[in-house]
Amino acid sequence: MKSSFLYADITDNIARLIRDKVLQPGDRLPSVRMLCEEHGISMNTAKRVFLELEAKSLIESKPQSGYFVCQPPFQRLPIPSVSNPSTNTDRPEPDDLLRKVYSIRGAKGVTNFSTGVPAKEFLPITRLNREIVQATRRLPAAGTEYEPLQGNENLRRMIAARSITWGGKLRDDDIITTAGGMNALSFCLMALSKPGNTIAMESPCYPGSLQLARSLGLKVLELPTHPVSGVEVDALKKVARKIDLCLLVPNFNTPLGSCMPEENKKAVVELLAKHGVPLIEDDIYGDLYFSTQRPKCCKTYDQEGNVLFCSSFSKTLAPGYRAGWVVPGKFKEQLLRLKWVHAISSSTITQEAIASFLRSGRYENHLRKLRVQLQQNYVRYETAITTWFPPDTRISRPQGGLALWVELNRMVNTSELFDIALKQKIGFSPGRMFTLQPQFDNCMRISLGVLLTPELEPRLKQLAKLVKAMR
Amino acid sequence: MKSSFLYADITDNIARLIRDKVLQPGDRLPSVRMLCEEHGISMNTAKRVFLELEAKSLIESKPQSGYFVCQPPFQRLPIPSVSNPSTNTDRPEPDDLLRKVYSIRGAKGVTNFSTGVPAKEFLPITRLNREIVQATRRLPAAGTEYEPLQGNENLRRMIAARSITWGGKLRDDDIITTAGGMNALSFCLMALSKPGNTIAMESPCYPGSLQLARSLGLKVLELPTHPVSGVEVDALKKVARKIDLCLLVPNFNTPLGSCMPEENKKAVVELLAKHGVPLIEDDIYGDLYFSTQRPKCCKTYDQEGNVLFCSSFSKTLAPGYRAGWVVPGKFKEQLLRLKWVHAISSSTITQEAIASFLRSGRYENHLRKLRVQLQQNYVRYETAITTWFPPDTRISRPQGGLALWVELNRMVNTSELFDIALKQKIGFSPGRMFTLQPQFDNCMRISLGVLLTPELEPRLKQLAKLVKAMR
Repeated sequence: MKSSFLYADITDNIARLIRDKVLQPGDRLPSVRMLCEEHGISMNTAKRVFLELEAKSLIESKPQSGYFVCQPPFQRLPIPSVSNPSTNTDRPEPDDLLRKVYSIRGAKGVTNFSTGVPAKEFLPITRLNREIVQATRRLPAAGTEYEPLQGNENLRRMIAARSITWGGKLRDDDIITTAGGMNALSFCLMALSKPGNTIAMESPCYPGSLQLARSLGLKVLELPTHPVSGVEVDALKKVARKIDLCLLVPNFNTPLGSCMPEENKKAVVELLAKHGVPLIEDDIYGDLYFSTQRPKCCKTYDQEGNVLFCSSFSKTLAPGYRAGWVVPGKFKEQLLRLKWVHAISSSTITQEAIASFLRSGRYENHLRKLRVQLQQNYVRYETAITTWFPPDTRISRPQGGLALWVELNRMVNTSELFDIALKQKIGFSPGRMFTLQPQFDNCMRISLGVLLTPELEPRLKQLAKLVKAMR
Repeated sequence: MKSSFLYADITDNIARLIRDKVLQPGDRLPSVRMLCEEHGISMNTAKRVFLELEAKSLIESKPQSGYFVCQPPFQRLPIPSVSNPSTNTDRPEPDDLLRKVYSIRGAKGVTNFSTGVPAKEFLPITRLNREIVQATRRLPAAGTEYEPLQGNENLRRMIAARSITWGGKLRDDDIITTAGGMNALSFCLMALSKPGNTIAMESPCYPGSLQLARSLGLKVLELPTHPVSGVEVDALKKVARKIDLCLLVPNFNTPLGSCMPEENKKAVVELLAKHGVPLIEDDIYGDLYFSTQRPKCCKTYDQEGNVLFCSSFSKTLAPGYRAGWVVPGKFKEQLLRLKWVHAISSSTITQEAIASFLRSGRYENHLRKLRVQLQQNYVRYETAITTWFPPDTRISRPQGGLALWVELNRMVNTSELFDIALKQKIGFSPGRMFTLQPQFDNCMRISLGVLLTPELEPRLKQLAKLVKAMR
């Protein structure tokens, strides 16, 4: 309890210094370490202080440099409110809306501001091509044979090696590869649930996860979620007894881009282990952090093998390669069986190509570049939206990942706006897609994977105009 | 009715001619067409006559040449009996046995006579490699992007074009690609069943299908199946009212290698359509026929879109590419949704490579060669088993595909034999794997995908010795 009082006190103090212009726009704040020493607090508490100040739009982080007072501090748009979904668990997906939105995937002439993956300009395609060629040369029977059930060994070894970046300590034998990240989630849900079970998720969250859960006959309990710090631990605490399963995207989830503080991750892992509720952790965005450090995962704190850690290379490297994986903890036998029964084996060549790309060290270089590009793109979008959208707009502060969440005036129904914008060949994702509840009707998701080039800016400006016209 | 009397009469007449040595070993029989003209019967009736004579081991077909009186006719081992499974639908899979058998996949030093795929010597690996390289050059963003939900368009077009070989008349829009054949079956079962439903299958049948059905909570009704003509239509007729789903491998199923006569296929399609029971047809072996003509499929006779036709390139080209497909008929929406929810998209590069291989005409050349190789391999196995195994052994007469079914003396328990043989580094598939019932304990499957080279012959001879020792 002490630490939480402390963190609020320190946050308030710094906020006052900024409001009183003792600290001025552009001023650098003390480092996390300095704050620890000054106040005798833990690293986590110090980090939480900065997160809170960031959430209040008072400070901003710059990669490799630290935290700075916002420039100019009070012109940034505020962040969206914490979600407050109902406890109704039996609502259907907004099918018609989803169908409509997904039907514009790849449609010619449409400027779609909400694709789920980074644009190809962000990807190391030439190099990957070379890796594919070499993979066919290296693999036994050139990749035409079934590989071992658990998946390509080189890839599993590289994934295990990289797990130190989030404190993971994995061995290759802990990992099962899958045909993309969605396939990993699908196996986890199929292994651990039966129809009628209740699964808890963030709200708003990825529509694919909602569809998956509903398609397996599960009830979905949506949890209040903070746009900066992610799912509300207290809310989860209240329902932990009543749920059978929990699926979270703790790092830079879509559409919020929030990142759970370490102490929250730890608390959630302990809470769910105590109640015997398996936690499926989807970390597909974890490597796309904008700050200086890779965030930890829930899996980092998993002592009992109760966390099923899922990820893929679809958001960082090559969606079309369908290379994902799951670290199933104590549920390994069930997961292996499901993979055996439903898939027999994964596609070998693309896995081997990615393994080699990782081994060469090029993946880390690529990620470094990609992170900077995405963050710069985020700043571009934020500036543009702040400039062109109405002043009562709110936007999220993604700390990584590919999504920007925009909350508009209550008068603006983004599902209707979608139809109007599409007539002008502009696409985005209406907020209603990201929930089963009647909420987020005035929200939209923008994808940071779409580069906001000077050519695209007039299209975004046009979208802003349509928003204004709707109010 | 008339035709069935006719066919029995003609069969008996020819059989008598052979037994009376009017027709002698090596003599060529009239062609199907000639038999039609001589007796004024339909093609189907004529074909059935030959099938029956073949089942009686009196005649044998030679690719591109026709039917011949067996040489020497009465020394061939008889065929296994028609299966007679119980109607118990709630039995579990023989899990321990399955685990044991699958654990020897790829084990070093073990001569495994029962792999599910053709050995790499049978596959056009160098050419496929080149196709992979060219695919990455040709695909947008070199295959790193998601492809359309329904799957690679070139591949779907080529699959549609090839469907004329079995009278299929498909269009590319009728096809959804999947990550291998098992993935296609998995989507079909998930789309059309719920836990507690009953699915009818051949007996014996592919263990993967049994596992899949049980893993989804289905009851499995095994149907009496003839080693030459496949599932007994009358048996299916009796239960059609009681089942929710039917999964058949009409052409060269594993482990029997049987092929349903055209009139049986037609009858089954009509029967199931009448009862509103969807038929999932697994045709992965259909292109591997030993006779002169590609057999038709159940899908050929499907007027109402009630047949979900599944296949893949895993048995003919490249298991490790994970390229399969489903023609879902009237269930297209459900199947597309499942693919979307569980997979998002398929791996693009391998599909594009196969499409190009097909378009070049090389696939047909490859199949022609492969079919002859497999049939020659079958003859080698038959000769070897007839020579070395005890005289009370029975073996199937596969008309195509990759499997040979061997029925031994009732005293021989092949699950126990498996352990004994494995100590001598010899592997095969015990009959008990292919059923949920207590049957086939004295049977085994041998794979025609394993080339019986002079080096391997002593291993098979050793297996025969172990069989003899067990009697």
